[in-house]
Amino acid sequence: MPRNIKLTIEYDGTEFEGWQVQGPRHRTVQGEIQKALRKIFKRDIVLVGSGRTDSGTHALGQAANFKAETSMPAEEMVRALNANLPADIAVLAAAEVPDGFHAQFNAKSKTYRYTILNRPVRCACLRKLAFHVPYPLDATLMRREGQVLVGRKDFRSFMASDTAEKMKPGEKDTVRTIRRLSVKKEGPWISIDVESDGFLYKMVRNIVGTLIEIGSGKLPSGSMRKILLQKDRGYAGDTAPARGLCLVTVRYPDKKQKARPGK
Amino acid sequence: MPRNIKLTIEYDGTEFEGWQVQGPRHRTVQGEIQKALRKIFKRDIVLVGSGRTDSGTHALGQAANFKAETSMPAEEMVRALNANLPADIAVLAAAEVPDGFHAQFNAKSKTYRYTILNRPVRCACLRKLAFHVPYPLDATLMRREGQVLVGRKDFRSFMASDTAEKMKPGEKDTVRTIRRLSVKKEGPWISIDVESDGFLYKMVRNIVGTLIEIGSGKLPSGSMRKILLQKDRGYAGDTAPARGLCLVTVRYPDKKQKARPGK
Repeated sequence: MPRNIKLTIEYDGTEFEGWQVQGPRHRTVQGEIQKALRKIFKRDIVLVGSGRTDSGTHALGQAANFKAETSMPAEEMVRALNANLPADIAVLAAAEVPDGFHAQFNAKSKTYRYTILNRPVRCACLRKLAFHVPYPLDATLMRREGQVLVGRKDFRSFMASDTAEKMKPGEKDTVRTIRRLSVKKEGPWISIDVESDGFLYKMVRNIVGTLIEIGSGKLPSGSMRKILLQKDRGYAGDTAPARGLCLVTVRYPDKKQKARPGK
Repeated sequence: MPRNIKLTIEYDGTEFEGWQVQGPRHRTVQGEIQKALRKIFKRDIVLVGSGRTDSGTHALGQAANFKAETSMPAEEMVRALNANLPADIAVLAAAEVPDGFHAQFNAKSKTYRYTILNRPVRCACLRKLAFHVPYPLDATLMRREGQVLVGRKDFRSFMASDTAEKMKPGEKDTVRTIRRLSVKKEGPWISIDVESDGFLYKMVRNIVGTLIEIGSGKLPSGSMRKILLQKDRGYAGDTAPARGLCLVTVRYPDKKQKARPGK
């Protein structure tokens, strides 16, 4: 019987066209890991991720699982995978999980972090891992407005506009539960953590774009509540760029299956 | 009369053949900034750095100065330079300094930071800004042994071997004063800060390489003192790779001329 293996994965999304396989000409994280699995186990293996991440988005703790008939110890799989993966992907952990475990369907919540460098001058060293906002942002106001989004809400206003067009008017699946939305400021760095049971396409980047417009004064205080209630993408701020976004953790009901970054 | 302008510069050294201009085919930090200065001031300008940094070494607060006949405000120079520089160099500050100020000769001390990721698994996101050491290191022992180097000492043992061969036997200029050497551990990250009035070629990387060999048990406790006293490069550890090294600060006698990273 094949074993079910769960991986915890870090990647620098800069040089990838996102997580999901799109064909041989596209360099994707899933595609690169499946190539490495094929080398190690000598046959095609499907890797199921907790969900897609966009082109340019990073991960410190993406979770995924695959099934393979093998007696290889999990620790040895970590070594074998890292030896066969490019430098911008690192497998942090591998663990055997129950046969029924599914990285996407069993995910209880995910936490994304968005990193902003807020100072007049751009940065060089971390330019691919943060979004530079040169005008001053009021992090306290952003923190307060962000709290409006915590709880079970209809996040249609923060869904990518092209997704919205494809949906039927009666569709009700834009309701999600944000468990936590924190805004932390440390020197010129602002980091926004959002934990939710699920995310609509580009939801975090649209929330962050809106928070930036509120923090800069482009949108008045109180806007977040109004935009949420509009249930229309046209009212929210611009989509913040992918390079500031990082999937930090995926949580599963069983503590033993929690994907955490190795730090 | 030309004004003397001091710059504070951040760069990601990954794609550079070091600081110093070496000719048109080599991409260097000094070369790129001089190109930008030529575009802005319409003539050749020499940029004097506080010192060279190696190929692959980064900076958060390199200092440099140049002279130009211009009425442009310093703040405007920052904007103009950043608009004309590639993304892996950022000018953090520009300030007018006295005519006699020389970024190299007036430097009182420099602080370098070396960053080690110490865990079995390599990392993806910060792979170009840190050195991955997979076997366990004893940071407490490294801290203690590092203290042996603090003070006015002959650092000949930690000078690049090719430099040593070129020196005459009687040359005495391998004496430097290390003011501070700290070893900090935070999770899997170990950062080693070295502040000195000057550095021999590859001195920090050779000290770090030796500390790593002591921390891993390859060299016994007490080795640092013995190696220092040998005054022979053959006894020290391997040179740690450039990608873990970063020039953090250059200090000058006058507080107003201190180059600090913008953070």
